[in-house]
Amino acid sequence: MSTKIKDLCYIVPMEKNAEATKSRILKAATDEFASYGFAGARVDRIAAAAGCNKQLIYAYFGGKQELFDALARDHILAVLDAVPIDANNLPEYAARLFDYNRSHPQLIRLVQWYTLEGVESPAATALTQQSMLGKVEAIQAAQKSGLIRSALPAEELLTLVLSISNAWEIGMHNFQDGMNTEACERHRRSIIMAVQKLIS
Amino acid sequence: MSTKIKDLCYIVPMEKNAEATKSRILKAATDEFASYGFAGARVDRIAAAAGCNKQLIYAYFGGKQELFDALARDHILAVLDAVPIDANNLPEYAARLFDYNRSHPQLIRLVQWYTLEGVESPAATALTQQSMLGKVEAIQAAQKSGLIRSALPAEELLTLVLSISNAWEIGMHNFQDGMNTEACERHRRSIIMAVQKLIS
Repeated sequence: MSTKIKDLCYIVPMEKNAEATKSRILKAATDEFASYGFAGARVDRIAAAAGCNKQLIYAYFGGKQELFDALARDHILAVLDAVPIDANNLPEYAARLFDYNRSHPQLIRLVQWYTLEGVESPAATALTQQSMLGKVEAIQAAQKSGLIRSALPAEELLTLVLSISNAWEIGMHNFQDGMNTEACERHRRSIIMAVQKLIS
Repeated sequence: MSTKIKDLCYIVPMEKNAEATKSRILKAATDEFASYGFAGARVDRIAAAAGCNKQLIYAYFGGKQELFDALARDHILAVLDAVPIDANNLPEYAARLFDYNRSHPQLIRLVQWYTLEGVESPAATALTQQSMLGKVEAIQAAQKSGLIRSALPAEELLTLVLSISNAWEIGMHNFQDGMNTEACERHRRSIIMAVQKLIS
């Protein structure tokens, strides 16, 4: 009996430690992939930044691909949780997505690398498709109830709303105004106004 | 005199040949940079695809950076020439930009790599800033004349119009409908409608 308790005492801190290490690896991997993309990311740089052995990353996650998949899953779940669709108030939803992307600049970079490099990430693909379907259904319901007056197909509306929400994050139109507080507030107001007009 | 004519006859085909080779290099480089980005692009693959010696690329263009700069300049000048701003008809302008991007898929990829990787391209930076300023002035004039009723600042309107025009090209919202002809026509109509509402 005393042996079992001793084992338990030994196991619990080890597992805590493992979780903390995994968490450090995921954070370092996020920095690395967001900076250099999938092809450019180096597992040894991630290991160095996480303060662990490179082999431990392979042991915990498998390969570089699985590591990307794991962190993509975390980041997508985080944004879905923080900014759920509100089809009854799409202008505010778009503005909250803008706020989220401002405070989580790595997310949009990761998504851009993912699409540009064609990274295989089953988790990202499945979660994105699933969440898009849910959003489309919510918009269709709001169209039926009359809260959204636009007759554009819900898929089209959704794509336009998402695109408007990150108009200042991605694209070919960088005014390099530094995105200071004043500029951000102006962009936020523009996003709300643009989505209001879109759905009217 | 006859020697001079002979020299001339010798020089002219050489120059023609050089232009043809430069053109082949720029085409191969466009494919390479659009596929792999700046960091991932390999000058020896470009040389192989262009059927020339790697050293010739350095001789003609300088380094990889200068090669990127040269092709960025060509591609930006091409789109500016093909789709000039029409501030008196922004919905149609956005649709023509959509058409152009559909038929030149490498342009948006190059721009995305350029912004994501932070590639230094003096030509791209200067041309983009200059063209954005011209577009802003055109929109301001259309606002003054009453053709654009929206009171949003011209810079904000422009960013939103550009973002709407490439909503289906970039971003985190890929429905993977294959962008067949029917889907493209639907997106084109959505873009026109969205910009009409935006400027009203």
